[in-house]
Amino acid sequence: MSKGLVVQKYGGSSVANVERIQKVAERVVSYQKKGYQLVVVVSALGDTTDELVELADKINSDPSEREMDMLLSTGEQISVALLAMAIHKLGAQAISFTGAQVGIITDTSHTRARIIKINADKIKEELKKGKIVIVAGFQGVTLNQDITTLGRGGSDLTAVALAKELTAGSCEIYTDVEGIYTTDPRIEPKARKIKEITYDEMLEMASLGAQVMQARSIEVAKKFNVPLHVRSSFSTKTGTMIIKEVKMMEEVVVSGITLNKNQAKITLCGVPDKPGVAVRLFQDLAVAGVSVDMIVQNVSHTRLTDISFTIAKADSAKAGKITKAVAKKIGSSDVLLDEDIARVSIVGVGMKSHHGVAAKMFGIMADNNINIEMISTSDISISCIIKKKFAETAVKKLHEEFGLNKRG
Amino acid sequence: MSKGLVVQKYGGSSVANVERIQKVAERVVSYQKKGYQLVVVVSALGDTTDELVELADKINSDPSEREMDMLLSTGEQISVALLAMAIHKLGAQAISFTGAQVGIITDTSHTRARIIKINADKIKEELKKGKIVIVAGFQGVTLNQDITTLGRGGSDLTAVALAKELTAGSCEIYTDVEGIYTTDPRIEPKARKIKEITYDEMLEMASLGAQVMQARSIEVAKKFNVPLHVRSSFSTKTGTMIIKEVKMMEEVVVSGITLNKNQAKITLCGVPDKPGVAVRLFQDLAVAGVSVDMIVQNVSHTRLTDISFTIAKADSAKAGKITKAVAKKIGSSDVLLDEDIARVSIVGVGMKSHHGVAAKMFGIMADNNINIEMISTSDISISCIIKKKFAETAVKKLHEEFGLNKRG
Repeated sequence: MSKGLVVQKYGGSSVANVERIQKVAERVVSYQKKGYQLVVVVSALGDTTDELVELADKINSDPSEREMDMLLSTGEQISVALLAMAIHKLGAQAISFTGAQVGIITDTSHTRARIIKINADKIKEELKKGKIVIVAGFQGVTLNQDITTLGRGGSDLTAVALAKELTAGSCEIYTDVEGIYTTDPRIEPKARKIKEITYDEMLEMASLGAQVMQARSIEVAKKFNVPLHVRSSFSTKTGTMIIKEVKMMEEVVVSGITLNKNQAKITLCGVPDKPGVAVRLFQDLAVAGVSVDMIVQNVSHTRLTDISFTIAKADSAKAGKITKAVAKKIGSSDVLLDEDIARVSIVGVGMKSHHGVAAKMFGIMADNNINIEMISTSDISISCIIKKKFAETAVKKLHEEFGLNKRG
Repeated sequence: MSKGLVVQKYGGSSVANVERIQKVAERVVSYQKKGYQLVVVVSALGDTTDELVELADKINSDPSEREMDMLLSTGEQISVALLAMAIHKLGAQAISFTGAQVGIITDTSHTRARIIKINADKIKEELKKGKIVIVAGFQGVTLNQDITTLGRGGSDLTAVALAKELTAGSCEIYTDVEGIYTTDPRIEPKARKIKEITYDEMLEMASLGAQVMQARSIEVAKKFNVPLHVRSSFSTKTGTMIIKEVKMMEEVVVSGITLNKNQAKITLCGVPDKPGVAVRLFQDLAVAGVSVDMIVQNVSHTRLTDISFTIAKADSAKAGKITKAVAKKIGSSDVLLDEDIARVSIVGVGMKSHHGVAAKMFGIMADNNINIEMISTSDISISCIIKKKFAETAVKKLHEEFGLNKRG
């Protein structure tokens, strides 16, 4: 009698070589032996995707997106075939499918396609026959039979969408870390694995720099209430559950702390304080493909004000040039570029109902002589831009003061 | 105005690296500029297929054939995407397809599937739009949407089948040699490229060891009368035309000479000369998967006779064991294994109408003191088994005496 259906997703590092593929096969078969039905989503082996991108770049530095999808989708196809063979070797039954074969229908936005629907009949049929069904992650097919890929984090999305479509009991995301941590353990060794976290908190942490899962898959999991279990493919320990609501006796105010050191700050000084100036600047940046993160404009007491904003460091040259051009047009006095910054953020749904969290954060910074240059807040997060040299201290102090060192 | 449709097939060595893919793209685009419509069939890059087979072998030495097809078909998919990108780079329009996408429907015999039908509507549609259509060779799809591969030489078969289905004006098979030669130029430097050869002769040469094209594709080309042009992807020279009938003022008796040094001869001595003995031996060999080439049983003047047969050298240990077992059962006196042999064959449709070709061949051998150990003949070929040390001399002498050194 079946214990129900589990969808498991294994990332590229989990299937990086023959030995790891064999380990994954062993885990999958052990689940089947326990009585579960299994749908397994696999990414491309290790660095395969990067290697294919590099090969394409040598041929055409501006390749057709349709052809890129044709090329990159082979990575996952190789993985599913090899995993099926490894499972067969263990004496279990398995069958592999491409995204197209299991009817993962997407729109026509190549390299970043959105799933429209899934015709899961084929998967159900094979599950009924007692087979482990292995599905190539990251890919789908248009109604016109063109192969598409789902963009970064696409395999997670495949797993979540299949879990929803098949009403799976759980969706396990296997990766090379043991779960979601209160902060980066490389910075704060006292960082602890979070047992449970809400979709909203995870979304916030993902957008603030926690790289375990892409925001998109979490959004879909939230939308359809698919519980996610993020865990390590190298151990059997329980990882982190990402769910709708965390029920605890005592509500936790701050769940995690993120740090992003890959940003730069640009300040446009002496801006005439009248409508339209900011619009022009950010329109020009958007047209050039520069993604702006935080924006701060002070209330001015004169006719002039300063606008500061942060961007990815990789975009700083481009953004600097655009800002200088705007500065010239509007007669602004100066443009300052600061690459020596870090963004430290605290995340937690508990903030909503707890007053004074921001004040406490600012107090901790002040107590440690860390000057805050910019502030940005959302419903469940507060971010501060500080000098980069204070980044690690800030993370450690916040981690301690918000009680993350000890929570069980 | 279109000059008609050309199907071109490029083998693995023609697309072994970025530079070669670019060369292929240039050639393809030059054809389009001359006014041709183009369907281009591509094999996997260089050694990709071998590398994938090796990877699979590390995981499962007896892999599922369905999963092997899933795995190996990625090789050609990579090639078609890269070639499309290379053509785009040259400013021309191109679109790539897998076998499944262009409706190459096969039976379910994985790793050696047979094409049932081709729904070429998609190709026609893209050709109408002025695009160069690139199709992954070697692969198809079952009616149940499982990916299949067509076995060795499968990409040639894809090209021939598409040329037939699309009623192409010509089907060009690009390879790393300049065409079909009267014999192996590494043995006889005077070997010349054959301008025209019939399907039957080419079939005979392929089965006798000429490795440029697999017999299967030639059979299909013959069946549907698709003219083939075998030529080099590294030059613009005309290659060899494989056609139904070669029209020449003076008919050529012998078109080519082939040599196979990868065989072994087994002789079962002292066999009771009664029905059923040969049957048992060759049944046992067939069951063990040993493919037997030539068989000779002498008319006996006593109650005992000898049976000799040739097999691929790779099978000699297995075949020897089986033959010894049979020998024991029937009380045969001895089993002899000879790996020191070569098969030299002359091929030509002209033999049919010219008497004395065999006699002339045997005479040439005798004149050069080459002893013939076995003889086998077909309508358009005569093969002799000789000692390996005489192989090169035999080829050179036959090449000269049958007038192949000088023919224009």
